[in-house]
Amino acid sequence: MILIGERINGGFKDIQRAVGKKDKTILKKWAKRQAEAGADYLDVNIGAVSNKVEDFLWMIETVQETVETPISIDCNKVEFIKKALEICQKEPLINSTTAHDEKLEEIIPLAVKYGASLIGVCMDEAGSPKDANKRVELAAKIFTAAIEKGLPPEKLFLDPVVMPLKFLQPQASHILEAIRQFKLLSDPPPHIVVGLSNISSQTTEISLINRTFLTMAIEAGLNAAICDVTDTDLVNAAITTELIQNKHIYSDSFLKAYLATKVKT
Amino acid sequence: MILIGERINGGFKDIQRAVGKKDKTILKKWAKRQAEAGADYLDVNIGAVSNKVEDFLWMIETVQETVETPISIDCNKVEFIKKALEICQKEPLINSTTAHDEKLEEIIPLAVKYGASLIGVCMDEAGSPKDANKRVELAAKIFTAAIEKGLPPEKLFLDPVVMPLKFLQPQASHILEAIRQFKLLSDPPPHIVVGLSNISSQTTEISLINRTFLTMAIEAGLNAAICDVTDTDLVNAAITTELIQNKHIYSDSFLKAYLATKVKT
Repeated sequence: MILIGERINGGFKDIQRAVGKKDKTILKKWAKRQAEAGADYLDVNIGAVSNKVEDFLWMIETVQETVETPISIDCNKVEFIKKALEICQKEPLINSTTAHDEKLEEIIPLAVKYGASLIGVCMDEAGSPKDANKRVELAAKIFTAAIEKGLPPEKLFLDPVVMPLKFLQPQASHILEAIRQFKLLSDPPPHIVVGLSNISSQTTEISLINRTFLTMAIEAGLNAAICDVTDTDLVNAAITTELIQNKHIYSDSFLKAYLATKVKT
Repeated sequence: MILIGERINGGFKDIQRAVGKKDKTILKKWAKRQAEAGADYLDVNIGAVSNKVEDFLWMIETVQETVETPISIDCNKVEFIKKALEICQKEPLINSTTAHDEKLEEIIPLAVKYGASLIGVCMDEAGSPKDANKRVELAAKIFTAAIEKGLPPEKLFLDPVVMPLKFLQPQASHILEAIRQFKLLSDPPPHIVVGLSNISSQTTEISLINRTFLTMAIEAGLNAAICDVTDTDLVNAAITTELIQNKHIYSDSFLKAYLATKVKT
């Protein structure tokens, strides 16, 4: 399971304040906590806090001063992504391109040039997908563009677009069906990733809904998630799902054994 | 989700003592607790405590004095099942027949005669099934025998035989695949049930493994489980899995709303 820590995001109040005051303490705390919890990447998103690329780069540099975990460059501005790619010390993940032609033309060559991995989000000019078929159509478009432009398939992460259960309840089944179909796009299958926390948005049972959906999605074929890696119940559910799938060997200390292989600080 | 409470079983020390001393208190406590937790049936199994049918009937009567929840008659002796059927006040579940010809010949007509539901366990004279195909073959045999002998398909529960993850780790995937295939036996599909606690037998993470496997199994097509219904995390995982499948309508109090429809005391 590839775990991408979601917490360094200007949408959170403490991160917003930290970026505003250029206070490294909060960013370092979350970088360390997420790395210790087993994150494979740390997502960095400046949100609406600032529109200066210097501030975004300051966030990334602060994380890189603290831990060795690779960065997930979470931004929709191509100029920001370019500058970020120049300073990343480990092979980063670009989060993200959509299936828009112009986005694919711009972002895929950047990923190829810098040896970065890339999340392809199954949205296009028509907006968010409404069913599994549309998701698969957009995933196939992104997948084909990536191969044609020279991105190795093992560096592509397809994202079926998770929507809030509270407001779009029937979408969850479409997303799980899309994941099952993404698996069939190639052999070995591409990585499949979700922005997990969207599923539980504005619900009263955030952790329970997150971990239950994550288990269902892993069983459908998911192998990566942008999520709250500091939610121990969530990470334990992911490890246990893969244990039941026979992807790790059972031992009485299987939870600890798994995390021991992941933590990089 | 059809929840069958596992706790009134001579394999548990407190039940063993209670049956030995004819002490109703313990049985009544577990009957009440499981009914309040939302059990649809209460499994009653005398285990190795006694070989007297009177003791088994005393257990059932004690439960029936306490709650209105139907009984799951968990016994492999035909004579015990017959006597138990005579005293059940609500339509019971017979747990179980296997795919042995002589078992099918004896037990199915009993279920038909008493209007009982029946669990068909996918084992035969060759013992436990080793893969999904064998499970499906035995399920089809039981299903066909039930239909031929006049048991309505909605009264049949097929059990793919859960094995301990700790000792037979690859079996979990076979069981989930079997469940997916059982669903295709008829439309609407037969009920599919597991003895859930077997999956976590002798592990250090009983509740975590139980609820993770239950979520995966429900996503595969399971709709019933013999389990620890007093494990709130387990029941919440089951409810949430079905919520994500769009089988219940989301509300902020979806956990309470679900249980409110189930509890019979």
